Amino acid sequence: MKIAAYHLDGKPGLGSLSADGNSLSPFDLSGSAAERGVLTLVDAGAGRPGLTSEKLPLSAVKLRAPVPRPRRNIFCVGKNYYEHAHEFASSGFDSGAASGAVPDAPIIFSKVPDCVSAAGDPIPVDPRVSDAIDYEAELAVIIGRGGRGIAKARAMEHVWGYTIVNDITARDLQGRHKQWLIGKSQDGFCPMGPVAVTADELDLSKTWVRCHVNGELRQEAPVSALIFDIPTLIETLSAGITLYPGDIIATGTPAGVGIGFEPPRYLRAGDRVSVDIDGIGRLENPVATYQEALRGAVA
Amino acid sequence: MKIAAYHLDGKPGLGSLSADGNSLSPFDLSGSAAERGVLTLVDAGAGRPGLTSEKLPLSAVKLRAPVPRPRRNIFCVGKNYYEHAHEFASSGFDSGAASGAVPDAPIIFSKVPDCVSAAGDPIPVDPRVSDAIDYEAELAVIIGRGGRGIAKARAMEHVWGYTIVNDITARDLQGRHKQWLIGKSQDGFCPMGPVAVTADELDLSKTWVRCHVNGELRQEAPVSALIFDIPTLIETLSAGITLYPGDIIATGTPAGVGIGFEPPRYLRAGDRVSVDIDGIGRLENPVATYQEALRGAVA
Repeated sequence: MKIAAYHLDGKPGLGSLSADGNSLSPFDLSGSAAERGVLTLVDAGAGRPGLTSEKLPLSAVKLRAPVPRPRRNIFCVGKNYYEHAHEFASSGFDSGAASGAVPDAPIIFSKVPDCVSAAGDPIPVDPRVSDAIDYEAELAVIIGRGGRGIAKARAMEHVWGYTIVNDITARDLQGRHKQWLIGKSQDGFCPMGPVAVTADELDLSKTWVRCHVNGELRQEAPVSALIFDIPTLIETLSAGITLYPGDIIATGTPAGVGIGFEPPRYLRAGDRVSVDIDGIGRLENPVATYQEALRGAVA
Repeated sequence: MKIAAYHLDGKPGLGSLSADGNSLSPFDLSGSAAERGVLTLVDAGAGRPGLTSEKLPLSAVKLRAPVPRPRRNIFCVGKNYYEHAHEFASSGFDSGAASGAVPDAPIIFSKVPDCVSAAGDPIPVDPRVSDAIDYEAELAVIIGRGGRGIAKARAMEHVWGYTIVNDITARDLQGRHKQWLIGKSQDGFCPMGPVAVTADELDLSKTWVRCHVNGELRQEAPVSALIFDIPTLIETLSAGITLYPGDIIATGTPAGVGIGFEPPRYLRAGDRVSVDIDGIGRLENPVATYQEALRGAVA
């Protein structure tokens, strides 16, 4: 099932996307339950609420991120595709480059939950803070059943589903502050969506991640090329950190980010970035100045 | 005012500590408001609830962390005292050591909110995950009024108060994973308390941080020795990341941590670690095996 969180006439809703992707059947939920997006379905487990008989045209709603406000920072993985690990290590922004391009163990950092935005929301570029803002197309895992000490062999049983994340990054801040939290967590730096899909929807062996900027293909790789695959990430994280339902793990980005070019090709106001993942959809966002983004003056 | 969050007969409460530190006057609050600890007071702002006329002996309650479950990961600062920056850079665990011991800009990472524990709670040592567990005594700032682009000169107006954090760290994981999230976020790795104090209680120019392990003084420094002071940290973080009421910033640790010794002196089950900060109190925790900690078999 593909699930969209949305606002209709300012009220939160949660719906199942039709096979043709053009309409939504809303779940039968209170406003406060719908407000939490798919977290409500994750928490409900097998007791998932039913669908109403209503049909909403997708064009009538304003999409929200599937998890509009994660309960804690999003777990993110760095340098998790070989070619990207090399392009980042040679970029000059990798404070850990001295220890080698390809990591021996997953590099895990986080993004604050409040930087999540929706498909269509502007990615803000604020030159007072950074002029080196980059895209990173990523498959994100949504944890269903939590746990500690989850073994690789059982890890996929803990996956509720997937969504798309664009792990927007201020490269100058990422380099300057050594640890990546600041460069990764600027306001508006985590577009997510357009929908979440339940785990049964994706065959990871056939799933590709692509990113276009202004229609030009920049990133393209199969999820099967991850250095540390999803079971390994879940085993590594949960070894000593209890995972909870609704936790999000952004699995890393392929080669082709802006700093991989010489000179770097950063995002500029007026650009459009789209991330496509087979079986989920297209997450498209305009890039805007911070002032335009604040005014909501971008479509 | 010094404020303690506690459980009494299994029910959450929040109280003001008496001048002699021996009793609590509970705030007049619902259970769900008390459950959130001082976040309830932070959110109430000037509309702070009144105190009841009750007096509880401190010895009758089980202390909780002042913010039992922060709304997002705790912001933490690395290498923010000169001597500690040098001891860590020479330890072999600093993945960023190639770029110099003393940072040019604040190093900001995070700890998951669910690893917060209270004064008296065991710090779990799980040899399946790490055998290089270290203490880090720190002053933590609790943000009152949020904001973005907060200038240094106005930053202290955004501070609601302070507490103590012991930024427990698995050094092997911190080194292996390059980014520090995993090494810093293991279950039980953020003892906090024993109380929070409102900003007016502390004169930062006279505040010292100390840490003892089994009664032996290990760390001792004035907060005035921070490389990046609290206004600078707030300005840096909020430049592009909106801060929210209740955000916590752990400001960094002085020299004297376990990896500063040759050979390193890691925490072992049976140890007792205490962090003292003038004007706040003493945060004391036993160290226990993970199994003992789970069973609650440690006093």
